[in-house]
Amino acid sequence: MMYAAAGVDITAAEENVRRIGRHARSTHGPAVLGEFGAFAGLFHLGRRLRDPVLVASTDGVGTKALLGAELGRLDVLGRDLVNLSVNDVLTTGARPLFFVDYVGVHALEHDVLEALVGGMAAACREVGCALLGGETAQLPDLYPERHFDLVGTVVGAVERDQVIDGSGVQVGDRVWGLPSTGLHTNGYSLARRIVAEARLDLASDPGGRLGQPLADALLAPHPAYLGALEPLLPAIKAIAHVTGGGLPGNLPRVLPEAVSVELDWGAWPVPPIFELLREVGGVPFDEMRRVFNLGLGAVFVTSPDVAVHSGLEVGRVVPRQAERVLFRGA
Amino acid sequence: MMYAAAGVDITAAEENVRRIGRHARSTHGPAVLGEFGAFAGLFHLGRRLRDPVLVASTDGVGTKALLGAELGRLDVLGRDLVNLSVNDVLTTGARPLFFVDYVGVHALEHDVLEALVGGMAAACREVGCALLGGETAQLPDLYPERHFDLVGTVVGAVERDQVIDGSGVQVGDRVWGLPSTGLHTNGYSLARRIVAEARLDLASDPGGRLGQPLADALLAPHPAYLGALEPLLPAIKAIAHVTGGGLPGNLPRVLPEAVSVELDWGAWPVPPIFELLREVGGVPFDEMRRVFNLGLGAVFVTSPDVAVHSGLEVGRVVPRQAERVLFRGA
Repeated sequence: MMYAAAGVDITAAEENVRRIGRHARSTHGPAVLGEFGAFAGLFHLGRRLRDPVLVASTDGVGTKALLGAELGRLDVLGRDLVNLSVNDVLTTGARPLFFVDYVGVHALEHDVLEALVGGMAAACREVGCALLGGETAQLPDLYPERHFDLVGTVVGAVERDQVIDGSGVQVGDRVWGLPSTGLHTNGYSLARRIVAEARLDLASDPGGRLGQPLADALLAPHPAYLGALEPLLPAIKAIAHVTGGGLPGNLPRVLPEAVSVELDWGAWPVPPIFELLREVGGVPFDEMRRVFNLGLGAVFVTSPDVAVHSGLEVGRVVPRQAERVLFRGA
Repeated sequence: MMYAAAGVDITAAEENVRRIGRHARSTHGPAVLGEFGAFAGLFHLGRRLRDPVLVASTDGVGTKALLGAELGRLDVLGRDLVNLSVNDVLTTGARPLFFVDYVGVHALEHDVLEALVGGMAAACREVGCALLGGETAQLPDLYPERHFDLVGTVVGAVERDQVIDGSGVQVGDRVWGLPSTGLHTNGYSLARRIVAEARLDLASDPGGRLGQPLADALLAPHPAYLGALEPLLPAIKAIAHVTGGGLPGNLPRVLPEAVSVELDWGAWPVPPIFELLREVGGVPFDEMRRVFNLGLGAVFVTSPDVAVHSGLEVGRVVPRQAERVLFRGA
């Protein structure tokens, strides 16, 4: 018996490294040492920080991968994978240094992998992060045909005395939001179920409410908030990335125990995809806000004297109550 | 419709973070800042290196995950996940700093996840590496029931002027090997196919040749070579981790173009599991050595005047030939 008979093609793996290496190298600056495809990636940190704290986050795009694969929007998945971890790392005040990826597949399909990695490389270039290395694992007995999972890890750095950890947040502070483009990378198991059960046509705009085909609304890319937040970092006390768990699940992760946050429902635009999913799926509002970001992709806190021009003011820090996140006017 | 109806349980996810947090914290020294379960993990690098190069590797355990899940040997999979990336990072001379993991599952089973993360934490403690964070993704529509994939990322560091990159390797250098315990984490799609087609009993010792049940031989843990190699690093010119591609696929990754390596077949013990798989599966020798490590888990190169007491001398560096890795006496 040969390895290929068990569904693993070593020659294709070598061709794969050659193809994706081209994309990876497009993200490399002088800090990247060594060759792409080595056992490990090397990033010369040197003395660019006085007292560096390294910050790491690893995550996947969830079942958005199934939707992206079905609709052939693979570049979006690659971008999402980078941006979601860039945002997680950014919650501490850190800028991204490098990214490594893992793709588990049933079989190597070069076009699929190139599109995925091409999306990753594009997102990496936009945030100044090096695609340092990765692994494509052929697992024919684990992943069904044409299925894959994607996992990305971002490592960033921040000066020890500039770490943002929410500890300075106090009653009266202002709460700001950055708009989301849609579901980002959370809630897709529920959204896909709703779409399937209602037999919605992904190519159409149900009820003319989205202004675009349903597929496009569902596959809007997860944006990186680095560009918007970087100039504000010195004035920011806390940053939450609104992922699984929604606003009530994520804001408390960066709040001191003594406070809650009151959000003004209506202070930010809610993308119409959420209202469509709520109505068609009959999802209670309380469940909607625990699963989806409902229009805010990131939330941050400043003292009351700070005015921010690149965010929407969406609420305030209040004394601790039973609910850590209150929706006023919902 | 509720999220739970789509197979995703947010409450179980919170309990999961609580349970695995206990294991993660057992790996934390003073360099780890912040709370486990935050958006990102923080590791205070500070000034412990003069001119640091960060070294990263991401990988999974392949379809060994299927075998480990079937046989309930989850701690081994967790250990493997850490050690394989520790070894990849070590090929550059870097010591591991921290580790982050991703587990993609059909549904959260607390005992399974605790056993996996418990194995990761144990391996992290053994190599002095912090389990800094991770993600457990519930993907009911991607992973079949009771199936999961594991992805780990290790970040290490090495002084810029101590990076090991193979560039000093020259004809006449000595080649050393460190024994493998078995398949480590490569070739399982083929091994599982051979075992299934021959209907071998995993609980027995076929032909009495293994000295242990087949399951134990197949699930021997992937060792970390940090302990064996760390004292030797100043004398080492190149290190290869023998993973997918075997000796012919991995040694050339760290050799200069001008040289080949000649290995003395018989200079190291070949674990009997490999001979069993070859015979039962009728796998040609050339295919065996491209798929499996055949008894050497790591290979390193020193100049001729260096004597190493913790490795086996297995060959020498010779002038470049068509084959980059020659097996003398095979």
